[in-house]
Amino acid sequence: MQCEIIAVGSELLLGQLVDTNSTWISKQLAAAGIESYFQTRVDDHLDRIAQVLRTALSRSDAVIVCGGLGPTQDDISREAIAQIMAVPLLPDPVIAARIQELFRSRGRRMPENNLRQAEVPQGATVMPQMPGTAPGLICPLQGKVIYAVPGVPWEMRKMVAGTVIPDLRCRAGTPMTIKSRTLKTWGASESRVAELLSDRVNELAAKGNPKLAFQASGIEGIKVRVTAMGAEEVAVDRLLREEESHLRGILGDLVFAADDETMESIIIELLREKGFSLGVAESLTGGMVGARLTAVPGASDVFRGAVVAYASDIKYALLGVPEGPVVSESTAKAMAQGVRKVLQADIGLATTGVAGPSGQEGQPIGRVYLGLAISGKSEAHQLYLPGERQQIRQFSVISLLNILRKQLLNMV
Amino acid sequence: MQCEIIAVGSELLLGQLVDTNSTWISKQLAAAGIESYFQTRVDDHLDRIAQVLRTALSRSDAVIVCGGLGPTQDDISREAIAQIMAVPLLPDPVIAARIQELFRSRGRRMPENNLRQAEVPQGATVMPQMPGTAPGLICPLQGKVIYAVPGVPWEMRKMVAGTVIPDLRCRAGTPMTIKSRTLKTWGASESRVAELLSDRVNELAAKGNPKLAFQASGIEGIKVRVTAMGAEEVAVDRLLREEESHLRGILGDLVFAADDETMESIIIELLREKGFSLGVAESLTGGMVGARLTAVPGASDVFRGAVVAYASDIKYALLGVPEGPVVSESTAKAMAQGVRKVLQADIGLATTGVAGPSGQEGQPIGRVYLGLAISGKSEAHQLYLPGERQQIRQFSVISLLNILRKQLLNMV
Repeated sequence: MQCEIIAVGSELLLGQLVDTNSTWISKQLAAAGIESYFQTRVDDHLDRIAQVLRTALSRSDAVIVCGGLGPTQDDISREAIAQIMAVPLLPDPVIAARIQELFRSRGRRMPENNLRQAEVPQGATVMPQMPGTAPGLICPLQGKVIYAVPGVPWEMRKMVAGTVIPDLRCRAGTPMTIKSRTLKTWGASESRVAELLSDRVNELAAKGNPKLAFQASGIEGIKVRVTAMGAEEVAVDRLLREEESHLRGILGDLVFAADDETMESIIIELLREKGFSLGVAESLTGGMVGARLTAVPGASDVFRGAVVAYASDIKYALLGVPEGPVVSESTAKAMAQGVRKVLQADIGLATTGVAGPSGQEGQPIGRVYLGLAISGKSEAHQLYLPGERQQIRQFSVISLLNILRKQLLNMV
Repeated sequence: MQCEIIAVGSELLLGQLVDTNSTWISKQLAAAGIESYFQTRVDDHLDRIAQVLRTALSRSDAVIVCGGLGPTQDDISREAIAQIMAVPLLPDPVIAARIQELFRSRGRRMPENNLRQAEVPQGATVMPQMPGTAPGLICPLQGKVIYAVPGVPWEMRKMVAGTVIPDLRCRAGTPMTIKSRTLKTWGASESRVAELLSDRVNELAAKGNPKLAFQASGIEGIKVRVTAMGAEEVAVDRLLREEESHLRGILGDLVFAADDETMESIIIELLREKGFSLGVAESLTGGMVGARLTAVPGASDVFRGAVVAYASDIKYALLGVPEGPVVSESTAKAMAQGVRKVLQADIGLATTGVAGPSGQEGQPIGRVYLGLAISGKSEAHQLYLPGERQQIRQFSVISLLNILRKQLLNMV
């Protein structure tokens, strides 16, 4: 089973948008064991879309067309697919009703244009997932298949994960199971992680299964991915479990999460487990720590809130920081203690530092102090972070959360 | 002159790397007025690279092959090009000497492998830029041309800017300039924006230049892109300027920004212009409003800070919200007024609502109240947002900022 991806959109060809959709889809195909050797991008032009579809169908068993399913005149993937299938586009009353209902539920009038999205090539099936107004299509064609999904990432992802991949696996008919497990680490460089695991990498290379791969992921840390395959799902799961426990033995508390877990979901879990509540005082991060923690459903059980004390006088007045330079160890500590009290939390965290565009109080861009306060005790960590404004802010957030994580792990 | 791009590398097809090279190159082509309608990605496989090269040459005048010029055995773009040209690869002694010199100057031994990089298809020319060990190649072929450049971004960029683009412009013989301008809108659906502009789209379609295109960009709103072309840069700039002013006339205050401007950069600019300071009270957004505003360099001139009152009792105690249900119009107003006072800001903003995973106080997931307080006056807006937790939160943020933007625009 070979499947290729076609991304449709003039903005891709003009360099105005990076094609991350194809990257995401190809990762899913690889994980599902489906071969994929070609990707194409083409502009919003009927003949050219049809032309690349023909080329793709001549060499692959399945084609995923991403984009061009919107309501406007330049959304013509539906037309191109109908042309290739040599069938008419027919209005689907069920889809039309769903689109109308979607607008009604939001209290908005539906423009006539949107009914174009309810047109389906004769013989095509509509995917069950429909998070937006664009239906996904399964279009059979001489023993092969074209999947059409919208270019809006979160809509596309639901359809690819929910329909396209299962359908492809079913068509492939091979009972091979490929699964992977990703361990996320923070606190060591990629080469250090590779060094720690080099013996294990060699052992596994000799065995052939499972396989290890490293990936540096910026503010998501260094990831170690274990991929195992086999005929029996139970055996594959066991291989993964055993390898994970082996790797965790070597990497210790560098590993902060696995797969869909994030630093923030782990923090919320640990806080809940230990029965602590948390408050945060943010300066250079401006709300990012709170934003990340509250991305976790159920964060309200343990997260009390945050004070974004961007102006210095708010640090003094609201958090009780003694007046003076604010980019300092003592300010980080005082902010963490202050926010604990103001928000009546068991634990207080704090960030203060220089994100740029210019230095501050004689401190260089990238100088950051992170504070942690638990009951009467407080500590501060000094960092010097590379990069630009947004990167310094993001690294500050995850570094702070990692300090809290290690603290919580060490508490009974 | 039509030119297309082929990116070579198995890591692209496995989803391990996002293809930002093609995006960058296509932007250069567009700026130089060279048409580009197709992009392909293919894995490190000789026959498949040759196959996509043949397809590309059948429909375009020029092809840029990016990647596969390294020293290892899986770097085979040179071989594929020689196969297509039906010529042998010949060692180039000048290039070999340059590679050896590069290693010597860095005090490193040159692995034998690297001499593979000095092999050039007979009849090809080497590009003058050679920042690494991979030479760029110009390969003429029956009146058409293949350019081969390495996949390392900074090496590739020097060659494309220094050789490929000038060579293409010279071959095209027309000094055509293409430029575009993107207007970002918030507050109307894609189809509504298309409806408002449908007459203009038809007028421009008849004229042919400039062109309009729409793009739905989730929390960045609906974008309208104007693309103009012409022989004279001055005339192209004038066309863009005139069309922008025409479109702004139709779309009015739906347009919140253009090109690299963002909702938050516009807000910071407007606040500075009008001389107002801002404080934010966040509940369901948990710090996201502050995080977005402080992403703008210089935000500290106008942004005082935020209180993330996630727990209800913090809303009561710190922001002075009367005790009672917190997902309500009156709470949104009281939070906005409260944060204005606590942070001593001219303007207060507030978010409260239900992001999920479950309903709250009998209100459904997606119910959001946004508050705005200026001096003694306050107002609240009720929204019902679709989607999941993170989407509801993100839409709340940009909707709130848009309310503030429109308010500021209406103030003298």
